[in-house]
Amino acid sequence: MIRIGILGATGYTAVELIKLLLRHPEAKITVLTSRQQGEPHVASIHPALVGRLDLRLRDLNPQQVAAECECVFSCLPHGASAQVVKPLVEAGVRVVDFSADYRLNDLAVYRAWYEDTHCDAQRLGRVPYGLPELFADQLPGAPLIANPGCYPTSAILPMAPLLKSGLVEPAGIIFDSKSGVSGAGRTPKLTTHFPECNESFAAYNVGKHRHNPEIDQVLGTVAGQPIETIFTPHLVPMNRGILTTGYATLARPVTEAELLEALRAAYAGQTFVQVVDHLPATKDVSGTNFCQLTARLVRGRVIVVSCIDNLVKGASGAAVQNFNWMYGFPETTALL
Amino acid sequence: MIRIGILGATGYTAVELIKLLLRHPEAKITVLTSRQQGEPHVASIHPALVGRLDLRLRDLNPQQVAAECECVFSCLPHGASAQVVKPLVEAGVRVVDFSADYRLNDLAVYRAWYEDTHCDAQRLGRVPYGLPELFADQLPGAPLIANPGCYPTSAILPMAPLLKSGLVEPAGIIFDSKSGVSGAGRTPKLTTHFPECNESFAAYNVGKHRHNPEIDQVLGTVAGQPIETIFTPHLVPMNRGILTTGYATLARPVTEAELLEALRAAYAGQTFVQVVDHLPATKDVSGTNFCQLTARLVRGRVIVVSCIDNLVKGASGAAVQNFNWMYGFPETTALL
Amino acid sequence: MIRIGILGATGYTAVELIKLLLRHPEAKITVLTSRQQGEPHVASIHPALVGRLDLRLRDLNPQQVAAECECVFSCLPHGASAQVVKPLVEAGVRVVDFSADYRLNDLAVYRAWYEDTHCDAQRLGRVPYGLPELFADQLPGAPLIANPGCYPTSAILPMAPLLKSGLVEPAGIIFDSKSGVSGAGRTPKLTTHFPECNESFAAYNVGKHRHNPEIDQVLGTVAGQPIETIFTPHLVPMNRGILTTGYATLARPVTEAELLEALRAAYAGQTFVQVVDHLPATKDVSGTNFCQLTARLVRGRVIVVSCIDNLVKGASGAAVQNFNWMYGFPETTALL
Amino acid sequence: MIRIGILGATGYTAVELIKLLLRHPEAKITVLTSRQQGEPHVASIHPALVGRLDLRLRDLNPQQVAAECECVFSCLPHGASAQVVKPLVEAGVRVVDFSADYRLNDLAVYRAWYEDTHCDAQRLGRVPYGLPELFADQLPGAPLIANPGCYPTSAILPMAPLLKSGLVEPAGIIFDSKSGVSGAGRTPKLTTHFPECNESFAAYNVGKHRHNPEIDQVLGTVAGQPIETIFTPHLVPMNRGILTTGYATLARPVTEAELLEALRAAYAGQTFVQVVDHLPATKDVSGTNFCQLTARLVRGRVIVVSCIDNLVKGASGAAVQNFNWMYGFPETTALL
Repeated sequence: MIRIGILGATGYTAVELIKLLLRHPEAKITVLTSRQQGEPHVASIHPALVGRLDLRLRDLNPQQVAAECECVFSCLPHGASAQVVKPLVEAGVRVVDFSADYRLNDLAVYRAWYEDTHCDAQRLGRVPYGLPELFADQLPGAPLIANPGCYPTSAILPMAPLLKSGLVEPAGIIFDSKSGVSGAGRTPKLTTHFPECNESFAAYNVGKHRHNPEIDQVLGTVAGQPIETIFTPHLVPMNRGILTTGYATLARPVTEAELLEALRAAYAGQTFVQVVDHLPATKDVSGTNFCQLTARLVRGRVIVVSCIDNLVKGASGAAVQNFNWMYGFPETTALL
Repeated sequence: MIRIGILGATGYTAVELIKLLLRHPEAKITVLTSRQQGEPHVASIHPALVGRLDLRLRDLNPQQVAAECECVFSCLPHGASAQVVKPLVEAGVRVVDFSADYRLNDLAVYRAWYEDTHCDAQRLGRVPYGLPELFADQLPGAPLIANPGCYPTSAILPMAPLLKSGLVEPAGIIFDSKSGVSGAGRTPKLTTHFPECNESFAAYNVGKHRHNPEIDQVLGTVAGQPIETIFTPHLVPMNRGILTTGYATLARPVTEAELLEALRAAYAGQTFVQVVDHLPATKDVSGTNFCQLTARLVRGRVIVVSCIDNLVKGASGAAVQNFNWMYGFPETTALL
Repeated sequence: MIRIGILGATGYTAVELIKLLLRHPEAKITVLTSRQQGEPHVASIHPALVGRLDLRLRDLNPQQVAAECECVFSCLPHGASAQVVKPLVEAGVRVVDFSADYRLNDLAVYRAWYEDTHCDAQRLGRVPYGLPELFADQLPGAPLIANPGCYPTSAILPMAPLLKSGLVEPAGIIFDSKSGVSGAGRTPKLTTHFPECNESFAAYNVGKHRHNPEIDQVLGTVAGQPIETIFTPHLVPMNRGILTTGYATLARPVTEAELLEALRAAYAGQTFVQVVDHLPATKDVSGTNFCQLTARLVRGRVIVVSCIDNLVKGASGAAVQNFNWMYGFPETTALL
Repeated sequence: MIRIGILGATGYTAVELIKLLLRHPEAKITVLTSRQQGEPHVASIHPALVGRLDLRLRDLNPQQVAAECECVFSCLPHGASAQVVKPLVEAGVRVVDFSADYRLNDLAVYRAWYEDTHCDAQRLGRVPYGLPELFADQLPGAPLIANPGCYPTSAILPMAPLLKSGLVEPAGIIFDSKSGVSGAGRTPKLTTHFPECNESFAAYNVGKHRHNPEIDQVLGTVAGQPIETIFTPHLVPMNRGILTTGYATLARPVTEAELLEALRAAYAGQTFVQVVDHLPATKDVSGTNFCQLTARLVRGRVIVVSCIDNLVKGASGAAVQNFNWMYGFPETTALL
């Protein structure tokens, strides 16, 4: 039984993670931290947990966490996360980090898109990127895993096999992504105020979203050459789900059936990626760790469509999947 | 052409009011106030007004407002509203007040449900309650009108005629009300954060909502005796609309048809109250100043159901209707 | 391992049931039936099941079902359900029936609210009502269990203990219920067409809903006297969840704290009923088998508020809970 | 006062049109037709019209319509529409046609995307396309106007000026469009059943949507050369609104400011197209005839974003705008 700590336990990814881990036969949540005053009971913050987990949210004390946990999931924001992940890893605690702090390999890219400084920069480039469908070999026994961003997961999974097999051109790739509002977090803001986003649809951060360099890095690794994609996120009036529509130029003449076959071959044996013939809908993966994806060939251009639950395969489910790989548990434990 | 000022112009009732007044042939909006820094253009706060109204939001200066307007709509919160309505009225400016400051006749009730002090208490009881379907005779020429609360309008309209005609008992009346989220205002809060109220339904302020004494007062006036109702508000995951289900005990044996007939007779000639045979839905009055209502007789108990748009008949449409009565314009001007 | 058949497998309760049973270590789904042409794969009807269950939907043949299953869940509509449940039970197959066919004890009531004839009327009154929190003692080994209606579960759970303990009067009870749209089933109709119910709220079947006699019967059993309640259902623009607001007259002077204490005492040791101090929201039980409920005392009247997920505790979760009781498995198996 | 007939009056575009025309000082609705049995009152089909329009829905009789109307709006589906538009136009009745029957100039294209036959093919190519912002000169006095499709309006308005001025390449244009569900019409279907599209997001008709050739034709006309675009529609869980994100390759080096300036110059003096600096949201044009649009320059690629209300600027508002041009009324009559 692995004793688990969850840092930053008030957000949506944390509560989703708690629900998943409550089903995990090898995990026992022992520590929850947050900056809440008065160390409230977790059920007073997340009423869905009434009667299901009897812990209070404590102030974050890394030494205490290291003493009480073998493994930590950090749901802290970037910058703050590395500050505490660094000492925990050095103290021998294994960590799955939800933040972007260890996803990018290049400090210059981190500095361009995130912050001027990184307190643990020398570790960059040596932390596995926790997308098991592509990088499972790096995960067993890893002391630290960078949990992917939600949009990158939705963009990378359908496009990576097509790039890898040379079916699409690395240049000119566009990802037009649409996300439910839980992706924006639990802190109230005008843009996520109910009457502002209900019955409305909008693009945001066009050309400026921080998940763009992450997508470029991973697809570049897969393609074996630098890639610059266009990434346009939009907000959908729903709680959960990301659908990404990707556009790429065909690199050599194949049929739509061959595109689908390439995707199926790439994900043969993968439980959590389902290549489907129909156009998938986010509802069909809602609350699950599955990604459903498909491809179309239209007027010589490849269109891929993928669906995930942003809080599960896009965050907490992926984190449990990474935890399973890290410790050698069956990949699907607590996820089916 | 009446020059109009709108105080507290950043909220949902204000933008709805602006849209209505832009259609009013006798109104010209000349002043908008708010506490926003830097006196922003109204369209930067309400992008729906791009190209439609060229005014900036200015700090509230009552003397300036009095100099530039004949009529003011105050969308300020209670307490703050009376502070400025008092000098405006004394300066001869006519006012339609959206706040609760002049709705209650009894200072003790105001103090019990709102604030310990009222800066203009001597005016209480002398300000007409702006529900023209019941009190139109008090509105022409009024220097100040108290615009009703949204829930009270939805509760009073279906029940008042039944009480007045003695068809239902004054004791034991229950109003179970359901409102869209715009009724909670435009300030972001956790309870109105999209992922918190989307795909969810909850009661709130049970037994404690400030619209309860307002309902009691008006129905008490109509019934000619004090009334204490039970009022339970709920939040519906939609932007607009209030549906109130009211329960009352039949006072004398009548049929459902007679109940409906009593309602139709009470509202004969009223443009904005539609007594319908079917069970109304909020969508059918959304964006309009109409109230649709009906009644049922079930196991000896009277059930009334009413629908309004909380921002129109429940706020800004009613305010324009009151403005029309105040100045003698046709009641429906700018409202059809 | 119990071999399971699910009859009427195209609806929302069936797909929810399948997802739950896929997690059940003692259940193996072997038969799915429906009237679909061409015996389609279940994943072509429910794309959420791609890769998760490899069965086709077959025409319903009771003998075949009896040969291939020990236990059957019937998701067929009333009337049709009893037609097939009767021979299955007689063939020794255990059944959890989702329909209303075996919920009412009195044939006359069934005939008044449902159909003129009942093909298995002699069994009425001898089938346990599957609300384990009240009637668990009747469930172990039962050949047939009547799975409760969704609204009745939400109405009975908060009110039954108050009636049983004599805290509220049996007369004059009102249930004002609000349900998500999945409760209306999966067959497209104008009233459940997205643009008709999104951004709208309405009452329906006022005084005429078939769950009314079911509520009356169970509460009457609990109270030891006949009860006639008022029941008003409403449609909420959300997929899942029922919130019921119940109103009753206090029978003897107690405090709100004593009401809550009575509820807590009644449900001590019950995993799936959580008596909470706060006003519950449907989102906090969404996707779970929990019921959260509370009580308030307002102006001498008792107000109870309860929340369930209509597809889980209101249907398929309750069915699995009943299945667990029927076979002696731990009550929470596959439900946490 | 123009006597107006509306054909196919049960749908969402028809009820929106009725509401707009009720505000038009020069229009009087005299005929409504539909295939409903029993010639029901329009308010029994559209409860929002209770007390606002006293007409019954009659069977469609072209001669009768010609006798009672000067102008007809046809909300009939393609194929059926031309069947009745042809005799009406020949009888001297002016028509605004909502269907696609007269939008495409080339019979071969119509046959490839719609139907094998067209009953009025010789008129193709001679009917003005009712997008006044581009083709106003063809509208005054026109006997027949083809009202544009909703998606084409949202795609053409932001891209046409950039193509016309040679700022973007005609090749490789992509439109990723997102529409509210009312665009799918009022006939219940599984794909528009509330629980199927609420809390979900999906693409549909990828590479196969009939609005694609319409977009290509109009942009080809503007560009002076044939154009083949990629068009991907998606369904958003909201009632109203279309947002289109368009991608094009920059044809010559300009700045983002110059792109915006080109758009502003193109729409100078146009009331209903608002070029904005911010990223627009559909809510800000909901219920209005406005289109808000903007442009961004990202990594050398042009991204345009436009918002309309699919039922107003995308259908009935555009139809009234076309009606105003046809008869020489001020363009904005009944639309502000």
